[in-house]
Amino acid sequence: MDREEEIISWLRRQQPRAGLEAPGDDAAIVGRGSASKALTVDQQIAGIHVPADLDVAVWARRLLAVNLSDLAAMGARPRAALLTLAVPPAFPIRPFLSATVHTCRRYGLTLAGGDIARAGQAVTTMTLLGTRARGSRWVSRSAGRAGDRLWIGGDVGLSAAGQRLVARGARLVANRVSLPADLGLDAAAAVAARRAVRRHLAPRPQLELGEWLGTQRRSAAIDVSDGLAKDLHRLCRSSGVGAVIDSDSLPISADLAKLAAVVGQPAVDLALGGGEDYTLLFALPPRTTPPADFGARAIGRLIPGRRLFIEGGDGRRALDPAGWDHLK
Amino acid sequence: MDREEEIISWLRRQQPRAGLEAPGDDAAIVGRGSASKALTVDQQIAGIHVPADLDVAVWARRLLAVNLSDLAAMGARPRAALLTLAVPPAFPIRPFLSATVHTCRRYGLTLAGGDIARAGQAVTTMTLLGTRARGSRWVSRSAGRAGDRLWIGGDVGLSAAGQRLVARGARLVANRVSLPADLGLDAAAAVAARRAVRRHLAPRPQLELGEWLGTQRRSAAIDVSDGLAKDLHRLCRSSGVGAVIDSDSLPISADLAKLAAVVGQPAVDLALGGGEDYTLLFALPPRTTPPADFGARAIGRLIPGRRLFIEGGDGRRALDPAGWDHLK
Repeated sequence: MDREEEIISWLRRQQPRAGLEAPGDDAAIVGRGSASKALTVDQQIAGIHVPADLDVAVWARRLLAVNLSDLAAMGARPRAALLTLAVPPAFPIRPFLSATVHTCRRYGLTLAGGDIARAGQAVTTMTLLGTRARGSRWVSRSAGRAGDRLWIGGDVGLSAAGQRLVARGARLVANRVSLPADLGLDAAAAVAARRAVRRHLAPRPQLELGEWLGTQRRSAAIDVSDGLAKDLHRLCRSSGVGAVIDSDSLPISADLAKLAAVVGQPAVDLALGGGEDYTLLFALPPRTTPPADFGARAIGRLIPGRRLFIEGGDGRRALDPAGWDHLK
Repeated sequence: MDREEEIISWLRRQQPRAGLEAPGDDAAIVGRGSASKALTVDQQIAGIHVPADLDVAVWARRLLAVNLSDLAAMGARPRAALLTLAVPPAFPIRPFLSATVHTCRRYGLTLAGGDIARAGQAVTTMTLLGTRARGSRWVSRSAGRAGDRLWIGGDVGLSAAGQRLVARGARLVANRVSLPADLGLDAAAAVAARRAVRRHLAPRPQLELGEWLGTQRRSAAIDVSDGLAKDLHRLCRSSGVGAVIDSDSLPISADLAKLAAVVGQPAVDLALGGGEDYTLLFALPPRTTPPADFGARAIGRLIPGRRLFIEGGDGRRALDPAGWDHLK
């Protein structure tokens, strides 16, 4: 169990009669019935989640996107945002707010409040409140059942490659990616690298897919923020099941395959353990198939027990939760 | 107009059709009718709002209290909290969470989620969601009318004196205040100093008073976080009125009078401009009087126009919004 999950299970023990779904989902559900709301919060910190010199418009959109991804995993519709900035004196507050408001508008939500204070290192925090469409259910991590098919909403690992490129100096400014010359990329790899940087810095929350999941009779979902393997472990633990991933079905893009050598890690490692993909990992009863235009693919199934495996031509092996622990 | 209000009015211009009360109240109202919720967020940052070595249980309670005070100003009942910590490796996370959960329980609310990440300087952020009692109204800053009496929920300025003592080394640990020897206080001043430190580090949000205001036909309120003068300016600007404060009615406690010389500032300056009092400043129609057990006192009245005055034996003079700007 990672540190974050230890804390969550401690919180559950402390508050056994909490009037909401158990802490530990991507968002908390507050209230009952049609008036219930989903609440989530996330931080983007200079030097931890984003480079301190990141274009603030990109930063603002990323802060919103990673939060929206949590709402997507709950099947929620974004409704209102609160923003807090703890930032050094030179931080361009107005451009950050401007990008936040514009992006909020694109997603139909309102920046409703917040707080701004001084700090030595920029810590940006966003809270989102989401509602449920009439007749929909909240989606949770705990609704998976043995026999369900396991799906993923898009390819994984490319964001992790992009993160490594950003750490080596790649940047996204005003929608253009610049790559440091010392990477020595050929033209095809440079195209892949630009896509990876974009995927990392400008993730796209899968809100429509999440809302669709909420219309299903039963579905379980989590957004892949800490790596497919670790987040699958979380979904399985919440649902009380195990899982088998088919290694041939792992969604590894041609871009990722091109970049593995550049960033010095096997594509499959980046796909399983990279994290910050912000794509939805979800389980559905075997006869339910998501509409093709979501681009989701089946990658395995939930099984009885508690163990997780990956299987392919070379047999079956245990799937380690080799993800990314915020607290490490 | 201070920097924070500039930002708020800019936000309003950017989002003219926001489906909620205008940003700028102590909390945002999201949704309509009986399903509407109050949402607020606040930060407590090491070295800015609290000393970096503050006992984390005191810190956690203060973070919750300053947020609860925002809900109190809206007439809201606290329901759920989200907590984010961006903290150095040595920060005692578990004791902080433990104090948060215990204090949440005391106020009947649940710690429903959050996020924890590493940062160089501790930034602690809390979001609260509040609901309205059946049949109550949301209280706002904008409901004041000329002719209303102006009230304050308690004395002001003592927290500012306490802040200055904390800056000089006073501490609150496990409910005991320690004072640095070099203050050279006599016994009576030491008692006052201990109360001031407590008031500053362990403020008491006026939730019952706020809920009572919500049961009234009309009431306007703000919590005094940046100084009575500045927050009165805000209430008046939102309500489109002016105000006169009666200087003889200013709630200056005997403790504050004792400490003014110690901290080197006149008591009236601390009372008007000190801030972080977390008491409610509110306006009510002239025939409405709050129940005596709230300990509120009338300190003046709202008047037509836009100007603010303070008047007493030495005549009437303009009241400057000499409060405390977060962004300075």
